[in-house]
Amino acid sequence: MALIGTVAAEVLIPLAAVIGILFAVLQWYVVSRVAVPPHDGVGGAGKGDRENDGGGDVDDDEEDGVDYRGVEARCAEIQHAISVGATSFLMTEYKYLGAFMAAFAAVIFVSLGSVGRFSTSPEPCPYDAARRCRPALANAAFTAAAFLLGATTSVVSGYLGMRVATFANARTALEARRGIGRAFAVAFRSGAAMGFLLASSALLVLFAAVNAFGLYYGDDWGGLYEAITGYGLGGSSMALFGRVGGGIYTKAADVGADLVGKVERNIPEDDPRNPAVIADNVGDNVGDIAGMGSDLFGSYAESSCAALFVASISSFGADHDFAAMMYPLLVSAAGIVACAATTLVATDAGELGAADEVAPALKRQILISTVLMTAAVAAVTFLSLPRSFTLFDFGERMLVKNWHLFICVSAGLWAGLVIGYVTEYFTSNAYGPVQTVAQSCRTGAATNVIFGLAVGYKSVIVPIFAIAGAIYASFRLAAMYGIALAALGMLSTIATGLTIDAYGPISDNAGGIAEMAGMPRRVRERTDALDAAGNTTAAIGKGFAIGSAALVSLALFGAYVSRAGIRTVNVVSPRVFVGLLAGAMLPYWFSAMTMRSVGSAALRMVEEVRRQFDEIPGLAEGLAAPDYATCVRISTDASLREMVAPGALVMASPLVAGTLFGVEALAGLLAGALVSGVQVAISASNSGGAWDNAKKYIEAGATEEARSLGPKGSEAHKAAVIGDTIGDPLKDTSGPSLNILVKLMAVEALVFAPFFAAHGGIVFNHL
Amino acid sequence: MALIGTVAAEVLIPLAAVIGILFAVLQWYVVSRVAVPPHDGVGGAGKGDRENDGGGDVDDDEEDGVDYRGVEARCAEIQHAISVGATSFLMTEYKYLGAFMAAFAAVIFVSLGSVGRFSTSPEPCPYDAARRCRPALANAAFTAAAFLLGATTSVVSGYLGMRVATFANARTALEARRGIGRAFAVAFRSGAAMGFLLASSALLVLFAAVNAFGLYYGDDWGGLYEAITGYGLGGSSMALFGRVGGGIYTKAADVGADLVGKVERNIPEDDPRNPAVIADNVGDNVGDIAGMGSDLFGSYAESSCAALFVASISSFGADHDFAAMMYPLLVSAAGIVACAATTLVATDAGELGAADEVAPALKRQILISTVLMTAAVAAVTFLSLPRSFTLFDFGERMLVKNWHLFICVSAGLWAGLVIGYVTEYFTSNAYGPVQTVAQSCRTGAATNVIFGLAVGYKSVIVPIFAIAGAIYASFRLAAMYGIALAALGMLSTIATGLTIDAYGPISDNAGGIAEMAGMPRRVRERTDALDAAGNTTAAIGKGFAIGSAALVSLALFGAYVSRAGIRTVNVVSPRVFVGLLAGAMLPYWFSAMTMRSVGSAALRMVEEVRRQFDEIPGLAEGLAAPDYATCVRISTDASLREMVAPGALVMASPLVAGTLFGVEALAGLLAGALVSGVQVAISASNSGGAWDNAKKYIEAGATEEARSLGPKGSEAHKAAVIGDTIGDPLKDTSGPSLNILVKLMAVEALVFAPFFAAHGGIVFNHL
Repeated sequence: MALIGTVAAEVLIPLAAVIGILFAVLQWYVVSRVAVPPHDGVGGAGKGDRENDGGGDVDDDEEDGVDYRGVEARCAEIQHAISVGATSFLMTEYKYLGAFMAAFAAVIFVSLGSVGRFSTSPEPCPYDAARRCRPALANAAFTAAAFLLGATTSVVSGYLGMRVATFANARTALEARRGIGRAFAVAFRSGAAMGFLLASSALLVLFAAVNAFGLYYGDDWGGLYEAITGYGLGGSSMALFGRVGGGIYTKAADVGADLVGKVERNIPEDDPRNPAVIADNVGDNVGDIAGMGSDLFGSYAESSCAALFVASISSFGADHDFAAMMYPLLVSAAGIVACAATTLVATDAGELGAADEVAPALKRQILISTVLMTAAVAAVTFLSLPRSFTLFDFGERMLVKNWHLFICVSAGLWAGLVIGYVTEYFTSNAYGPVQTVAQSCRTGAATNVIFGLAVGYKSVIVPIFAIAGAIYASFRLAAMYGIALAALGMLSTIATGLTIDAYGPISDNAGGIAEMAGMPRRVRERTDALDAAGNTTAAIGKGFAIGSAALVSLALFGAYVSRAGIRTVNVVSPRVFVGLLAGAMLPYWFSAMTMRSVGSAALRMVEEVRRQFDEIPGLAEGLAAPDYATCVRISTDASLREMVAPGALVMASPLVAGTLFGVEALAGLLAGALVSGVQVAISASNSGGAWDNAKKYIEAGATEEARSLGPKGSEAHKAAVIGDTIGDPLKDTSGPSLNILVKLMAVEALVFAPFFAAHGGIVFNHL
Repeated sequence: MALIGTVAAEVLIPLAAVIGILFAVLQWYVVSRVAVPPHDGVGGAGKGDRENDGGGDVDDDEEDGVDYRGVEARCAEIQHAISVGATSFLMTEYKYLGAFMAAFAAVIFVSLGSVGRFSTSPEPCPYDAARRCRPALANAAFTAAAFLLGATTSVVSGYLGMRVATFANARTALEARRGIGRAFAVAFRSGAAMGFLLASSALLVLFAAVNAFGLYYGDDWGGLYEAITGYGLGGSSMALFGRVGGGIYTKAADVGADLVGKVERNIPEDDPRNPAVIADNVGDNVGDIAGMGSDLFGSYAESSCAALFVASISSFGADHDFAAMMYPLLVSAAGIVACAATTLVATDAGELGAADEVAPALKRQILISTVLMTAAVAAVTFLSLPRSFTLFDFGERMLVKNWHLFICVSAGLWAGLVIGYVTEYFTSNAYGPVQTVAQSCRTGAATNVIFGLAVGYKSVIVPIFAIAGAIYASFRLAAMYGIALAALGMLSTIATGLTIDAYGPISDNAGGIAEMAGMPRRVRERTDALDAAGNTTAAIGKGFAIGSAALVSLALFGAYVSRAGIRTVNVVSPRVFVGLLAGAMLPYWFSAMTMRSVGSAALRMVEEVRRQFDEIPGLAEGLAAPDYATCVRISTDASLREMVAPGALVMASPLVAGTLFGVEALAGLLAGALVSGVQVAISASNSGGAWDNAKKYIEAGATEEARSLGPKGSEAHKAAVIGDTIGDPLKDTSGPSLNILVKLMAVEALVFAPFFAAHGGIVFNHL
C-alpha cells in the first residue's frame, strides 16, 4: 500500500497551495517596501521609506541636475496612467467575456443535456453499461459550472497578474538607481508574487471543485471527472481571448509607436513625446502579463483535467483509490514547494552585481527547479501510488508500475528544460544564430528577414524531437495517462516559469518608465540590461507554453478519442484524412486573421501618432504633452473588435467539425491542428525573438562586430528595426495564441464528445 | 464489355503522344521563323527573314536614334550568354546527379534484393500467397532500371525545356517591337513547345517501359507495376535537385542583383551594368524552366505510377484487363489532345491587341482546357472501362462503377481550376489582397511584410478545402485508386499548365534582354506587361503543382500502406503520432536550409557586385563592361554546394525513419509532412507572389492610388522592393521545393516498402 493515503492527500494538496499563496504575499510585501509616492506627486512618503530601507545610495545624488523628487513623482504618475489604462481595458474586455461565458455555458448545458434528452433518471455508465451513473443532465449542469469556475479563475489570475506587474514596474525603475542587483530583486520578486499566486490558486480551486462536485457524484468518478474537464475548457477559452485581445492590443501600440517614433521621427523607444508610448506599456501588462498568465493557467488546468479524466476510467477510478487519483494534484503541489525553494536561491543567495549575471541567474532558476522537481516527483510517486495498477489504453488494459509514471512526469519536465535551453540558443544574442541575423542587416532589411525566418524554422527541429521523445516514452509506458503526466511534468515548475516570464515585461515597463520619467542614462542602461535578459526568458517561456500545449493537447485528444468511442483514428480513411488536412490549415487561417488585425490596428495607430505630431504644436520639441488617451482607446477598440473573428474560428471549428462531419473528422482535425500548430507557433515565436535581440545586439554594441553594425540610426540598425517590427505580431500575437488554439480545440472536443457521439456527423451521414 | 480493347489502347496511347510531340515541333518551327542573327553580331539573316515574315512594322523605325541592327546583334549576344550559362550549369549539375543516380540505383538494388536474400527462384505473391510471383531480385533490378529511366527522362525534360526557353527569349524581345500580340504569340508558342514535348515524352516513355517490362513479367502485373514505381522515384528525385539547385541559383542571383542594383545603386532591374544580371537571367531558365519542368514531370510520373500500382492489385490486374489497366494513361493521352485544341484557341483565334488582354487570355486557357478535358475524360471512361469492377481498399474489396472514376478524375481537374483561380485572386494586382499589401508599403517595409505574410496564410484556406473536397469524394468512391485518379485529373491538362508556366520566365527573360539590348521604352513596357501576367500564371502553376503534389502524395501514401502491410495508421499509437509530429516538422527544417542557402549565396553575390562597381572604373557610368562570368560562377558553385544538404534531408528521412523506426512511424512521417508541407508551400508561394505584384502594381501606376504610392524610388516603392526580395526565396526556392519533398518521400517509401516491411524498425523493436 502507498504511504500517502486519502487523508494525507486531502491535507497535503491544500497545504501546499496555501504555502504558495503565503509565499506570493510575502514577495509582494517585500516589493511594496519600495515606496512610490501617491500619483498626485506629493512624494513625502517615498523619501522616508527609502531611508528606513537602509539600502545603498541612489545614483541621482551623484549626478548633476537630476531632480529625484520630480523623478519619483513622474514615476508615480506614469505608473498610475499605465495601471488605469490596463485596468480599464481588462474591465471592458471582461465585460464582453462575461457575456460570452454565460452564452457558452448555456451551449454546454443544452448540448450535453440533449444527449440524455434532459432526463433526470440515472443512465448506464459510458464505460460499464452494467452499472448506473448520474444522468447526462447532471453532467451538463456540472460541466457548465466547472466551465464558469475555470473561466472565472483564469480571468482573476490574469487580472491579479496585471495588478502585481503595474505595482512593480515603477518600483523596479526606482530601485535601478541603486544598482542592477536591487532592481533585479524587485522585478524578480514581483514575478514570483504573480507566479506563486497563480499556480497555487489554480491548484486550490481545482482541488476544491473536485471535493465539492464529489458531494453530488459520490462514487461515480467517471461522471465527476468528466464534468471537471469543463474547468479546463473555461480556463483555456478565457486564455484565448486574453492572448489574442492582449496580443493585438500590445502589438498595435508597439508597432504603431515604433513606425512613427523610431523610423520616421528618430526619437528613442519609450520617449514620452510619443503619443502611443503609454498604450505600448499598457499593452505589455494586458498582453504579456494577463494574457500569458491566463494561458499558462489554462495549460495547467487542462493537463490536470486530462490526467484526472484518464485516471478516473483506469483502475484508480474503478478501485476508488483517492490518493492515487490525486497523483496529478500531488505532483503540482510538490512543484509549488520545489519552486519556492528555487526562488529563495535567486532572492536570498546574494545580490547580483553586474548586468551580465542577470541572464545566467534566470537560466539557473530553470535548471534548479527542474532538478529539485525531479527529486520531488520521485518522492510523490513512490509515496502515493500502489506499485502496479491497470490503465485503459483505448479499450485494452495495460499494466503499469509506479516508476513508469515517474518516468512520464520526468520526461515532460526534462523535455521542457531542453526546449527552454534550445529556445535560448536561438533567441539570445550571446550565440551564433542571432549574431548571424544581426550581421545580415548589413545588406538591408530583406536579408535580415530571410535569415530571421530561417532561424525560426530551424529552431523547430530540436524541440520537436524533445517533445516526440517525451511522447514516445510516456505513451509507451502509460498510454494517454502518461502523456497527460508528461504535460503536467513540464508544467510542474509553472511557478518558476511564470516568475521569470513575468519578470520580462515588468523590466520592460520599468525601462519605459525610467525613460519617460527622465532618469539618468546609467539607470536606463540597467533597466535595458534587465529587459534584454527578459526578452530571452520570454522566448523560453513561450517555448515551455508551446511544448506543454502540445503534450496537453495530445492527452486531451486521447481522452476525447476514448470518450467519443472511436476505435482507431485511421489516417487512411477519408474522414480522418480530410480532417487532418483541414486541421493543419487552421493555424494559418488563424495567423492570417491575427497578423492582419495587428497590421490594420497599427496603421490606425500610425495615423493618430502622425496626426498628433502634426497638429499639436511643440510636441516634437517636448514642449507640449501628447494625447495618450486617444492612443489607448485605439488599441482598446481594435483589440476588442479584432479578437472576435479569430476567437470564433477556434471556438467554432471543433463544434462545426464534430456536428457536421462527425467524431472521426474531428479527431483528424485535432491531430492536424496539433502537429501543424506547434511548428508555426515555435517558428513564429523564435523568429520574432531572434529579430528583437538582433536589434538589441546592434544597439548594445558589446562586441567589435556589433559596433561595426551600429550605432542606433545606422542603415544596419534601421534594417534590424524593420525585422523587430515584423517579429512583434509573430512572437506576441500569432505565435503564443496558437498554443491555445491547439489545446482549446482539444479540450472543447473532449467536453462536447458525448454530444458529438450522440448527434454528430450530419453531413457525412447523408452522403 | 468496354469499347476500347487492348489493341486500341496499345495504339491510341502512343498515337496521342506522337501527336503531342509533332505539335511541339510545329510550335518550335513557328517560333524559329523569328530570326536572330548569329551571336557574333553578323545580323544579315535577321533582316531577310523578317521581311519574308510579312509582319507589321518594327517600332524601331519610328523612334529616333535606335540602331536596330545593333539591337539585334546585342540580343543575339545576350541570348548566347544566357544559353551558354544555363547549359554549362545544367551540365555540371547533371554530372553530379549522374553519380548520385548510379549510387542510389545501387541502394535500391541492394536493399530490395535483400528482401528475398538475392534468391533467383520465384516467390509467393505478396497479395496472394497461393500464387508464385517473380523473385524480389527481379523486382530490385527492374525498380533500379525504372528509377534510372525516370531520372533520365526528368533530366532530358528539364534540359529540353531550358533549350526551348533560351531559344525563345530573344525572339520574344525582338517581336515585341512589332506589338504585344506578336510577342505574346512567340512566348506562348515556345511555352507550348516545351509543355507538349514534356507531357508527350513522359507518357511515351512510361508506356514503352510498361510494355518492355511486361516482356519479362508476363502476367505478374503486381510485380510489373511495383517495379514501375521506380520511374516515379527517379523523376521526382531529379526534380528535387533541379528545383532546389535551380531555385538557389536563380534567387541568389536575383536577390544579389536587386540588393545592390535597385536598393544601393538605384539602377533599373536588368540593367546591363549590373554584373549579376546575366546570372539572374540564367537562373530563370535553370530554376523556373528546367526545375519546374522536372517537377511537373515528376508529379505526372508519380501519379501515373500510383494509379497503375493500385490498379494492378485490383480486379483490373487480377482479370488482366489491359485496357482498363491503361485507363490512367488513356486519360493522359486524351489530355494531350484536349490541350492541343486549347492551344489553338490562343494561337490561332486572332492576335491580342492590348496589354490587358494577356492575363485573361492565359486564364481562359486553363478554363477551356478544363472544360474540354472533362468531356474527354467522360469519353475515355465510358469507352475503356467495364461498367463495374472491384478495387482493393486496404484489404477489403469495394465495388466501383465506371462513372465513379469519371467523378474522381473530374474532382481533381476542377479542384485544380479552383486552386488556380484562388491563387490568381491572391497574387494578381487586379484584386484586393495585393492592393492592400501595396497600400501597406506606405508605412514601410515592416507593415508590407506583415500584410504579405497574412495574405499568404489566408490564401491557404480555399485551396485546402478544394483539395479536401476532391480527396473526400474520390476516396469514398474509389479508395486510393480514386485519389491517384484525382491527382492524374489535376495533371491531365499538364501540357497547357506547362505552356503558361514556361511562358512566364520566357517573358521575364525577354524583358531583361530588351533592357540590356537598349530597346526603346515602349518595347520594354510591352515585355513588362507580358511579364506581369507571367508572374500571376507562375503563381497559378505553383498552385497546381502543390495541389497535385498533395493528391499524388496521398495516393502514394495509400499504396505504401498497402504494400508495407500496415492494417491501420492509427494516430493514437505512439509510433504513428511521433512520426506525424516529426513529419510536420520536416518542411520547416527543409525551408530553414533553403532560405539560409539563398541568403548566404545572395550575400556572396552582393559582395562580388559591390566589388565590381568599386573596382571596375567606368562601370557605374556604363563605360566599361562588368564581369558577368564571376557572378555566374558564384551562383553555380553556391547552388551545387547548397543543394546537397536539403536534398539529403528529403532523400534520407524516409530511409532513416523506415529502417530505424519501422513502417508505422514512417506512415506517420509521410502523413505529417504531407499535411504540413502543403500549407507551408502554398503560403510561401503566395506571399512571394503577392509581394512581387504589389511592387509591380506600384511601378505600373495604373490607378490613382498606385500613382500615389509611386513612382519607382519612392519610400513606398523601396518598401515594396524589400518585400519582393524576401518573397523571392519563399516563392521560388522553398515553396516549390516543398511539393517535391511531399511527394518524393511518399514515392520513396513506396519503392522501399518491401525492404522496410522485411527489415525495418530496428530501434523501436529493441525498446
